[in-house]
Amino acid sequence: MRIVFPRPRISKSACGVSAFAVAFLLGLPAAGADQPRSSYAEAGERIRKAGLMDERAFEFLSRITAVGPRLTGSLEAARAVEVTQGMMAEMGLDNIHLEPVTVNRWVRGAREEAEIVRSSSLGTVPLHVCALGGSIGTPDSGITAPVVEVKSFEELDRLGPAVRGKIVFFNRPMDRSQLEPFAAYGGAADQRVRGAVQAARHGGLAALVRSLTFRVDNFPHTGLMTYEEGIPRIPAAAVSTSDADALSALLKKDGAVSVRLKMSCRSLGTVETANVVGELAGTDRPGEIILMGGHLDSWDLGTGAHDDGAGCAASLEALRLIKALGFRPKRTIRVVMFMDEEFGGTGGRYYVKNARRKHEKHILAMESDRGGFVPVGLAAGRSEGGLLERLRALGDIFTPLGITRFSPGGGGVDVGPLIEEGAVPAAVIPNAQTYFDVHHSALDVLDRVHPRELELQAIVMAILALIVAEEGV
Amino acid sequence: MRIVFPRPRISKSACGVSAFAVAFLLGLPAAGADQPRSSYAEAGERIRKAGLMDERAFEFLSRITAVGPRLTGSLEAARAVEVTQGMMAEMGLDNIHLEPVTVNRWVRGAREEAEIVRSSSLGTVPLHVCALGGSIGTPDSGITAPVVEVKSFEELDRLGPAVRGKIVFFNRPMDRSQLEPFAAYGGAADQRVRGAVQAARHGGLAALVRSLTFRVDNFPHTGLMTYEEGIPRIPAAAVSTSDADALSALLKKDGAVSVRLKMSCRSLGTVETANVVGELAGTDRPGEIILMGGHLDSWDLGTGAHDDGAGCAASLEALRLIKALGFRPKRTIRVVMFMDEEFGGTGGRYYVKNARRKHEKHILAMESDRGGFVPVGLAAGRSEGGLLERLRALGDIFTPLGITRFSPGGGGVDVGPLIEEGAVPAAVIPNAQTYFDVHHSALDVLDRVHPRELELQAIVMAILALIVAEEGV
Repeated sequence: MRIVFPRPRISKSACGVSAFAVAFLLGLPAAGADQPRSSYAEAGERIRKAGLMDERAFEFLSRITAVGPRLTGSLEAARAVEVTQGMMAEMGLDNIHLEPVTVNRWVRGAREEAEIVRSSSLGTVPLHVCALGGSIGTPDSGITAPVVEVKSFEELDRLGPAVRGKIVFFNRPMDRSQLEPFAAYGGAADQRVRGAVQAARHGGLAALVRSLTFRVDNFPHTGLMTYEEGIPRIPAAAVSTSDADALSALLKKDGAVSVRLKMSCRSLGTVETANVVGELAGTDRPGEIILMGGHLDSWDLGTGAHDDGAGCAASLEALRLIKALGFRPKRTIRVVMFMDEEFGGTGGRYYVKNARRKHEKHILAMESDRGGFVPVGLAAGRSEGGLLERLRALGDIFTPLGITRFSPGGGGVDVGPLIEEGAVPAAVIPNAQTYFDVHHSALDVLDRVHPRELELQAIVMAILALIVAEEGV
Repeated sequence: MRIVFPRPRISKSACGVSAFAVAFLLGLPAAGADQPRSSYAEAGERIRKAGLMDERAFEFLSRITAVGPRLTGSLEAARAVEVTQGMMAEMGLDNIHLEPVTVNRWVRGAREEAEIVRSSSLGTVPLHVCALGGSIGTPDSGITAPVVEVKSFEELDRLGPAVRGKIVFFNRPMDRSQLEPFAAYGGAADQRVRGAVQAARHGGLAALVRSLTFRVDNFPHTGLMTYEEGIPRIPAAAVSTSDADALSALLKKDGAVSVRLKMSCRSLGTVETANVVGELAGTDRPGEIILMGGHLDSWDLGTGAHDDGAGCAASLEALRLIKALGFRPKRTIRVVMFMDEEFGGTGGRYYVKNARRKHEKHILAMESDRGGFVPVGLAAGRSEGGLLERLRALGDIFTPLGITRFSPGGGGVDVGPLIEEGAVPAAVIPNAQTYFDVHHSALDVLDRVHPRELELQAIVMAILALIVAEEGV
């Protein structure tokens, strides 16, 4: 009850920011308001208070997820384009427009099932599976074959011909002992992305991949898989971690286990869709653009709340806060809802092509695509020094917001091409310890996002964007 | 999908720790194990890996919450004493014992309801309420009276005689614009703790207090209230935030609104219960004790998962990790499950009295009672310098665990008396942005605690305890 809470230690390091960087922060509120104080700290405090009081990021998110799953090329993805364009109009942004993007449409189809096939007296045991994104389907009668379990491509290569005619079961878990969930994900995702190709190389009939999550439950997690020119295309599915453990135990016990896999997923050709763009035009240097964004498309099992409705909503809210509080940034701050991150970043590639054509200069590219959790760090710049060092020097602003880790980095699938063209990367780093519980699964829904934690992301993004809009990179 | 994650920046500051501080970390694993490397970093890594792989803190927590709500003096609280003593025995701790504690037993009783009373044609509107801990009940027929809303004790004082014969409705929300939830809680908790006394001073018949949470929902949040000698005792209840908003709106619209409050809560005298103590005796200086602990009692609406099953479970797991990995700390590391924090820290006062009698020397007191969330900081020491500075210098160990905020502080209700007697305070600081969603309400249940985030607390506690066991304070 009477919990004693220590005051956060605020860095006393000298502020490395030019003293002149003040006028833009005037905010020019309605007559009669307090004399505006002139500092980033004051601006940050105003943004924080307004954001936390109203928690509008969550409202934006709820409108995006209410559209439903937003698989690339789907009607729902198209509807999400309209919805977010409408939000930008409500906010009164400048230069609101759609950028046409042509994407491949893949659909899951009605049938998606798998079962362990045993003797007729024992019957079958259903498995919780889902097709991986981009996979071909199976014949209507399914694929029934013995299962061979491997933990790595090296093990698969050693088995070699023993794999022929079998379903290859990739069952290396995400390494739970790693602190950083993205690192653990990166250490296991090869199975999902390249498993079908590697299995097919050795004559495998299908790939069954352990879901990428630390948790043991019955929710399969989908995600992109790829094929390779010249290697036969075989179906690929994710199996829930609980079923993966059960299947593995059964293989150890019985030696031989057969699985039947039926999937009706397929590709349907290309569809026209769009990135959604809006901005607050800069007062002094409108040609220098600070970009914030997320991706509007999602996987189809949940409603893409964390991935990446959260990034879209936080970006929109960051710009709304800046505008609503009356800030007049020197440079242009733009939000972009990218289309089709999940199948490889199509919208990001279209975006940079258009930017080149229009001779637009993006000085900062800040993508939010790490889940809508409480922010704990900032990544910025390609290396130590420069922008990163200036942000560190502003610890007095960021530390009270819980931001105490500063590192080079940032970037993401959508803004990768922009960064290649010279934009400086930046990103808010959230606490992602629980992200893979829901990632790409039916669990990624609105209820899993906390209004206050999401709002804190938007607040930090708004402050970072304002500073760069004033100072440049 | 292909999220690029920046590497955490690791402080390059020189390690301020004596180079000799190594031997205790040998850990002496079974023959054939790797040659142990001699550094805190190595120890920290072993603890982290073992902890995250097994997530035993959550298992401990699930056994504690399975007992049910553990209201001070209840049978469930007594059962939790047995259960945690049993866990200590399983772990093979030294010096396991109970310390008798005499507590006051208060019970909620079967009846607890409130309703807005309107004209007979309109009927009544039920309100979601709960008695505050320690409150007297109402007469069987309830208390029916007009409601007067205030936002502060100052406003109440200004109203003065207008309050006589009324139910005083304290409706100042926790300030959502504050970043630090504990600060916002601290800024509103006076209404709950002292509302009944202040209302009674002016002749109020009962106190109805807005629940202490940022969220607007229909879960009332209980918590301790107090009476004062010489001031009439009147019943006090919390009302859900959603109902508080509705009641306030109705008061604005209709001017006069009456509420009927019926509660059968009451005090039942004293009960004998216990603190639970176990330790790993130090090899060199067993008389110097590092204490880790949480409180075993909880409120009765939920099962006290975050408050404070999490603190108990994390403390137990921290010591289990140390012991299971074969570390042999120089000084004694003790865990204590304190009884009766919620009604004012009875167990903590008994504990320090016993320690004095036994001439025990506690050098560090680390209480975990801020929710079982991901750790983001460490509080330690009474001021800058000393232990805190040495821990900061060990950034290489703590930073990779997500600990980037170091501040003086720590402490808590249970260890307050120990700290007064000279023990240095310490605490792991979690991200508590969502804590008050569940705090003291029916929502504080196992499902709200994440196994991995709780485990990280235990890991940080284990490492901190090991360092202090080696180095002293």
